[in-house]
Amino acid sequence: MTSFLTTLSGQAVRLVEVGPRDGLQAERAYIPTIDKIALVNRLAAAGHRSIEVSSFVSPSRVPQLADAAEVFAGITRQPGVHYSALVPNLKGLHRAIAARVDGVAIFTAASETFSMKNLSQGIEDSLTSYTDACAVAHKEGLRVRGYLSVSFGCPFDGPVPPTRVAEIAGRLLDAGVDEVSISDTIGVAHPAQVADVIGVVAATVPLPKLALHFHDTRGTALANVVAGLEAGVRTFDASAGGLGGCPYAPGASGNLATEDLLYLLDGLGMTSGVSLPGIIAASRSIAPLLAHDLPSRVVRAAAGGSRNWTPIRPA
Amino acid sequence: MTSFLTTLSGQAVRLVEVGPRDGLQAERAYIPTIDKIALVNRLAAAGHRSIEVSSFVSPSRVPQLADAAEVFAGITRQPGVHYSALVPNLKGLHRAIAARVDGVAIFTAASETFSMKNLSQGIEDSLTSYTDACAVAHKEGLRVRGYLSVSFGCPFDGPVPPTRVAEIAGRLLDAGVDEVSISDTIGVAHPAQVADVIGVVAATVPLPKLALHFHDTRGTALANVVAGLEAGVRTFDASAGGLGGCPYAPGASGNLATEDLLYLLDGLGMTSGVSLPGIIAASRSIAPLLAHDLPSRVVRAAAGGSRNWTPIRPA
Repeated sequence: MTSFLTTLSGQAVRLVEVGPRDGLQAERAYIPTIDKIALVNRLAAAGHRSIEVSSFVSPSRVPQLADAAEVFAGITRQPGVHYSALVPNLKGLHRAIAARVDGVAIFTAASETFSMKNLSQGIEDSLTSYTDACAVAHKEGLRVRGYLSVSFGCPFDGPVPPTRVAEIAGRLLDAGVDEVSISDTIGVAHPAQVADVIGVVAATVPLPKLALHFHDTRGTALANVVAGLEAGVRTFDASAGGLGGCPYAPGASGNLATEDLLYLLDGLGMTSGVSLPGIIAASRSIAPLLAHDLPSRVVRAAAGGSRNWTPIRPA
Repeated sequence: MTSFLTTLSGQAVRLVEVGPRDGLQAERAYIPTIDKIALVNRLAAAGHRSIEVSSFVSPSRVPQLADAAEVFAGITRQPGVHYSALVPNLKGLHRAIAARVDGVAIFTAASETFSMKNLSQGIEDSLTSYTDACAVAHKEGLRVRGYLSVSFGCPFDGPVPPTRVAEIAGRLLDAGVDEVSISDTIGVAHPAQVADVIGVVAATVPLPKLALHFHDTRGTALANVVAGLEAGVRTFDASAGGLGGCPYAPGASGNLATEDLLYLLDGLGMTSGVSLPGIIAASRSIAPLLAHDLPSRVVRAAAGGSRNWTPIRPA
């Protein structure tokens, strides 16, 4: 029997780097604008072609990213790199357009309570407003990504039926998004659930328009990536260094670290175009500014003396 | 397409708890005998049926486990629970027999340099001595497990060919072991490599006699378990709380945490007989005696307020 794991070698996989946005918004430390700019430039230099640079939300809600416009003004744009930003509404979209983003991300949730608490509006209202936002964005030539939060479980409402995830993902597509990122916001997903959810969602949203966004809160993120690969997903979100360590549990990890994801993908022989040493260098440049060690296990292992270990590819 | 991940529900899986031995031997803190005894008793109470309690190696080499005989004398033996110990040689075996172990584990390595540094003898010499040890152990009615260290890569010799792993695993079987634990001692394995190695090894060692022993140093442990499950392995080693955090990289994880493994297996719907809350309780009882937080991500997430999250099983 040939494992599907040994059939992935040579296949392309796309990474979406969310560290500067999803990572830094969850860090207690405020990172100076000049360091954010350097981080984004280093991530592009490491080979990333999709970077979520910042967020045009209210600075009172996310003070860590209040300098979004300044960051976009300061980065050195590389040809072929897609620099995007999160926008919560039309006002944020117009700020993003003024900052010359290449794309925007909007977000809704798979549970009503999470949507109310996080967006201050219900799922239906958010979808309505995003139809307008997508139209404006597309008119400006921008790509639109839609995050679907708590797709694998909600801290308030508990389990979310896969059919409900598929329904809202389809509605996001109807609203005009070009890609839906199915997100495990609280890091509870496990591989059988990923197989289940993607199996149902893929009937509504074509696989090339699907991304998976995992948090490694319970250590399952890479196992979930494997399940996503088996299901046919080829776009994965990750955060350099694991930026965005869970704010309520010091030391616990939030976002899947780009380095850990790359170690897996490199081992599988998949081609992402992103350099693992390059990402480690980018993460290390920001590490001294944080209030904690980087959560990435690969970064920690490298710090411990295993710096040059390269995953061994099966013959 | 049905994913193999959704076909595992209801299947039995066997856990071998190595925290009291492989975990504690790597901790800087010395755990008092009374606390080790309580830990082993709690692990049995949580449902473990295979517990590696301690090690009869030279106390000068592993002072943390110098009280192996006292621990065995102090535990409350439960019916159906297999209490074992690591032994490096015949001398250790006789000490283990005197302590009334149910089984012993011997160990060799997949690379010559690691064997010399860790065992002070080459692979061939270790296999010769284990033939005698297995005969003595079996005469006493003891089960013998053989660890095959650095099966996925050696810190000194680098990559190890899967055919070499299979060869030595077969030699361990010839020497008389009842089970071979293919071990990723330095935590470098990735899922495609697991598929590759097990595919080759299973031609020599029948799957029911194979176990997998992962370290989560680079975050790939659970993804590797998934690959092992796909390959047909049904026995996995783990360490309560992730005891045995990598000694050279503070904060980096060594052994795969039993809690993290259980979260995965519970999510897959597999039956291990081991209670996740029970293991968390056991780990927490030992945590205050360590010099660091427990590495287990599930334990950290629980500490952060997500205590009662139960993996959602697909319908």
